[in-house]
Amino acid sequence: MGVVIDGCPAGLEIDMEAVQSAVDRRKTGQHNFSSARKEEDAVEIISGIFEQKTIGSPICILIKNKDARSGDYDNLKDVFRPGHADFTYQKKYGLRDYRGGGRSSIRITAPIVAAGEIANRLILVLSKTETTSFVTQIGKVIYNVSSLAENGLSKEEKTFLADSNKNLVSADFEKKVDAEIEKIATEGNTLGGKITTIIEKLPAGIGEPIFGKLQAQLAQALMSINTVKAVEFGEGIHAAAMKGSEHNDEFEMKDEGVSTKTNHHGGILGGISTGERIIFSIYFKPISSIKKTQQTLSENGETVTITIEGRHDVCAVPRAVPIVNAYVQIILADLLLQNRYAKL
Amino acid sequence: MGVVIDGCPAGLEIDMEAVQSAVDRRKTGQHNFSSARKEEDAVEIISGIFEQKTIGSPICILIKNKDARSGDYDNLKDVFRPGHADFTYQKKYGLRDYRGGGRSSIRITAPIVAAGEIANRLILVLSKTETTSFVTQIGKVIYNVSSLAENGLSKEEKTFLADSNKNLVSADFEKKVDAEIEKIATEGNTLGGKITTIIEKLPAGIGEPIFGKLQAQLAQALMSINTVKAVEFGEGIHAAAMKGSEHNDEFEMKDEGVSTKTNHHGGILGGISTGERIIFSIYFKPISSIKKTQQTLSENGETVTITIEGRHDVCAVPRAVPIVNAYVQIILADLLLQNRYAKL
Amino acid sequence: MGVVIDGCPAGLEIDMEAVQSAVDRRKTGQHNFSSARKEEDAVEIISGIFEQKTIGSPICILIKNKDARSGDYDNLKDVFRPGHADFTYQKKYGLRDYRGGGRSSIRITAPIVAAGEIANRLILVLSKTETTSFVTQIGKVIYNVSSLAENGLSKEEKTFLADSNKNLVSADFEKKVDAEIEKIATEGNTLGGKITTIIEKLPAGIGEPIFGKLQAQLAQALMSINTVKAVEFGEGIHAAAMKGSEHNDEFEMKDEGVSTKTNHHGGILGGISTGERIIFSIYFKPISSIKKTQQTLSENGETVTITIEGRHDVCAVPRAVPIVNAYVQIILADLLLQNRYAKL
Amino acid sequence: MGVVIDGCPAGLEIDMEAVQSAVDRRKTGQHNFSSARKEEDAVEIISGIFEQKTIGSPICILIKNKDARSGDYDNLKDVFRPGHADFTYQKKYGLRDYRGGGRSSIRITAPIVAAGEIANRLILVLSKTETTSFVTQIGKVIYNVSSLAENGLSKEEKTFLADSNKNLVSADFEKKVDAEIEKIATEGNTLGGKITTIIEKLPAGIGEPIFGKLQAQLAQALMSINTVKAVEFGEGIHAAAMKGSEHNDEFEMKDEGVSTKTNHHGGILGGISTGERIIFSIYFKPISSIKKTQQTLSENGETVTITIEGRHDVCAVPRAVPIVNAYVQIILADLLLQNRYAKL
Repeated sequence: MGVVIDGCPAGLEIDMEAVQSAVDRRKTGQHNFSSARKEEDAVEIISGIFEQKTIGSPICILIKNKDARSGDYDNLKDVFRPGHADFTYQKKYGLRDYRGGGRSSIRITAPIVAAGEIANRLILVLSKTETTSFVTQIGKVIYNVSSLAENGLSKEEKTFLADSNKNLVSADFEKKVDAEIEKIATEGNTLGGKITTIIEKLPAGIGEPIFGKLQAQLAQALMSINTVKAVEFGEGIHAAAMKGSEHNDEFEMKDEGVSTKTNHHGGILGGISTGERIIFSIYFKPISSIKKTQQTLSENGETVTITIEGRHDVCAVPRAVPIVNAYVQIILADLLLQNRYAKL
Repeated sequence: MGVVIDGCPAGLEIDMEAVQSAVDRRKTGQHNFSSARKEEDAVEIISGIFEQKTIGSPICILIKNKDARSGDYDNLKDVFRPGHADFTYQKKYGLRDYRGGGRSSIRITAPIVAAGEIANRLILVLSKTETTSFVTQIGKVIYNVSSLAENGLSKEEKTFLADSNKNLVSADFEKKVDAEIEKIATEGNTLGGKITTIIEKLPAGIGEPIFGKLQAQLAQALMSINTVKAVEFGEGIHAAAMKGSEHNDEFEMKDEGVSTKTNHHGGILGGISTGERIIFSIYFKPISSIKKTQQTLSENGETVTITIEGRHDVCAVPRAVPIVNAYVQIILADLLLQNRYAKL
Repeated sequence: MGVVIDGCPAGLEIDMEAVQSAVDRRKTGQHNFSSARKEEDAVEIISGIFEQKTIGSPICILIKNKDARSGDYDNLKDVFRPGHADFTYQKKYGLRDYRGGGRSSIRITAPIVAAGEIANRLILVLSKTETTSFVTQIGKVIYNVSSLAENGLSKEEKTFLADSNKNLVSADFEKKVDAEIEKIATEGNTLGGKITTIIEKLPAGIGEPIFGKLQAQLAQALMSINTVKAVEFGEGIHAAAMKGSEHNDEFEMKDEGVSTKTNHHGGILGGISTGERIIFSIYFKPISSIKKTQQTLSENGETVTITIEGRHDVCAVPRAVPIVNAYVQIILADLLLQNRYAKL
Repeated sequence: MGVVIDGCPAGLEIDMEAVQSAVDRRKTGQHNFSSARKEEDAVEIISGIFEQKTIGSPICILIKNKDARSGDYDNLKDVFRPGHADFTYQKKYGLRDYRGGGRSSIRITAPIVAAGEIANRLILVLSKTETTSFVTQIGKVIYNVSSLAENGLSKEEKTFLADSNKNLVSADFEKKVDAEIEKIATEGNTLGGKITTIIEKLPAGIGEPIFGKLQAQLAQALMSINTVKAVEFGEGIHAAAMKGSEHNDEFEMKDEGVSTKTNHHGGILGGISTGERIIFSIYFKPISSIKKTQQTLSENGETVTITIEGRHDVCAVPRAVPIVNAYVQIILADLLLQNRYAKL
């Protein structure tokens, strides 16, 4: 697994331990949330960083996964697993790499998290922008986010999140989540969920007005996470049922400059940041690898019955939080740089 | 307004009357839905088409809007209208074109519709793919789409849609929509809504597996439509509350080849089409230009009160249907061509 | 004919009369050098400029050629003219636009010259860079440029060039060129030649180190001019016969900073500008449209004899000078902007 | 050192031993031609190839150079070596990696050669195209290529080339080259030279007509090789002194289809291949690292005297032959694929 980061200015200080630690954090230790395969993802710089600073050339980072055993997958090599990309890859390419670790694997996310950490270093040099993502739904258990656009997270929620290995913001919510996970684990079943992200202190003016709209670039990146099925910005799906007079946010002058009285628009107008808090949520389908026996087809078209063995994740959503943050940071870093071009 | 289409193979027959007619259809005549400015969008070919065929060079199409009078906007030139991009453009560029017809105007969609028509010609040469979009929500009036993924539109719905100038699929739904529109028009207010799209007979294998996933490319395009606030594919936001065993679609062999028994995945797995029906919905915020008096700021930071005069749309959603179709067609044409590269 | 310029910052003042005048200068009036077809190239802004300033959106410029009559070309529509792209277009696309004005026509250069003028406005805001191109060979008549890398043009050469409608730098050279042209015109034949370009006061550090090397980007652009057959930078082809000790330029400190004692390298090292004078030359083949009768093939493979009627250019090289300048300016403007990213 | 190859279709058989062998051949063993640092370039596949076949995902290849010792360069870390990119990198980025192995090093070419080998596999599946490059000048010793465009290499020249570790085509030429090298080596000096390339059996129609002209893409790639100072196609610089009637190639019908009687155009018209033999030459400056003592500046602007120790190449031109072939193959593979789009 590797990643090539192009376009990063020279002279940016990179703390490779922070990068390694971000990649490590991607893997949680508890059995219900994480893959039981113990991965050791050692981050190695191939080019672009010298004496802890970027030198202006493409940054190539390699992440070696020491524990991927291809043998584990042999029993599935001729079968189209329901909900997986086996069938579509076979149709598209006429062949496929049936081992774990391909492009549709969760493991491909390690380099993205590494790139996100570097992007965040650049963001903090160019601005004071902060990106925070957290789990707001697991299965049918939902955390209420209705006042987030206006107020952001409370101090208590932030504190709880800092220590939460499931990226939750409340103990009460965690209790319900744990019960739900426990129940579903017993069934050998899996759960989806929702992640909500807020971006604070992004300057006004970020985003490109036609095909590079801020929400469009974020949507593309977020929909690239394999199990994401929906994305909504600001009021999102609720906006469809609002009246114009309810949704419009009036401008007013505050100490720090032009601001909006309310924040239904979620920090973006015309594809460009307004300087208000940005808020969006993404929805995940449940993991496809379930313990229950399923009927499907082999590559030869024969009906077969499969049972996916081993310890499984019940829910991948908590694990996706650093990936969401990484995608957001990569896009924001790029747009903040691009914005240097916007006017003379 | 213009558009440059690059990468279209030579030898594609283009019926310019069909292109003109697609651009014309974008404008509906009824007062409640459409802008009262009567536009005449004359499509003109600048390059790339010779004797009704593409010649392999970039196709440049110009659409002259005869009726855009800049004078109409003079009273708004120093004001940040709530919900509009006036403020963000000013912040980003330090200046802006305050006349109607800029990048955030609905009028920019005429060239996209023209390009969509050409893309569709190419799609039909390369496949039998059909894209159908229709309005499934206006304000709080909602059309039930729960069986669409499995069954598609009924014959009656298709027939109704063909003649519907509001791009609806049922007379009963239209009656409720008309009542809602009537009521809101009286208030001088506006409404949002939802459009649902189904893509049928797209071959399996379309979409690129990492950053060019089919749903990611569609999401980027659809989120580029200015008033869109959410997009969902397949089960969408409902997928977050489903169990793996409920969401997984088992593969089975049908006469026409490998198929899935159910269609919760909505025709895409791993970013690549499965050959099943693709379904997605997008959600629109209400139009920002309302008749009600609003408080806002001038460019100098003074608090001002504005009333936006003239006849206004109550709801832009029906008008967005051809634009949604056009974006989908442009992406599908590109991906179908790209797929020629996928395997030897 | 049109051009879309993307990525130009907002707030750049554009004098459209200067753009029109640059496009006009591209056409010289004298019969031996110019096409006899009198062209009127009216430059029209479609988007991106408002109240004489760029607004940050793509700048679309249209140039309407009022005098292109397709009828003139009817006798050549089924024939592969020697030295022209008729055959290769037919092979590539299966059909072609046989009228004048296609992609291989000199007329396609009008939009490039317009874009070059806008690029130059941006260059002058970002730097003091000056690009000067002039004819240094017509047929066998050659102007000596051996001291140009060190000294640039003399004051007299600059003065002469400013008034030369053939873009020459010396009266003596012009006399010889005129005699050569006169002789070849009588034969009904055509001539090639050479253009030399010097770029002065380009800051050190411009160019991208791997695939975007300054000389590589310039070479690509210059080799895109249809009749260019060779390009050389600095000592060029002579460098191949030099020893390392002869070619190396030692660094020394001057008032204005680090400099090289000599300028064999021609202002570029490792793909990046050194701050020294950049010098390069490009070589043109003679125009393919000659009056002499030629044997060739029709599209059906029959041997035919053709005579290309009408008044012809003897030599297109003087006319290519503004095009060379435009390409250079477009690349420099882009690289100067990109360089804002190079370091923090 | 690594390379990522994107866009290669799935199902292409890759012989990794052939790739390793191509990378090995890049290093010649004799002291006068090669760097004395003994490199072991072990080629490793990171992704994109499974069971000896491409799978449609980006192919990432890593080449580990076991012998690069950063310590060797410590005495040069604060000095701007004449003719090197030390100064321009410092100006552009404000810092640089002073160790050997950076972007301006010859070692960066190993991944390009590996990519070229894979590209060539694809070319041979799509066509019968053969690319042959050979040294035609070392210092002042020149090999005559005047009939190459018409006749290609003779059987004897091909046989000699196959066994030549200096990529020469004649024993007589080799003798003169060896004498020249010997003389210059004694001086502690270096030499430039020329490489000529012929491409045979490339189908007509390859190349993109405006900004992607075949010669323009080749020129960009070839000018990316650090010591290349000029490139010429077909008659090249001689074309500037030819008359139209001398340069034009008349079309005629041969058994295999439309052909030209002569080959002054060098196989490309209007940026697109004609099917005739393509021929071009590139000119190299002498290597900058000479044994002779040179005066230069340190980073602090102090005048210093440097002597570059160790065994040096006298001439890098023979070593550049596989790199030239690799660049050509990468471009041709891409254009042959792209051409699948050209017409319906």
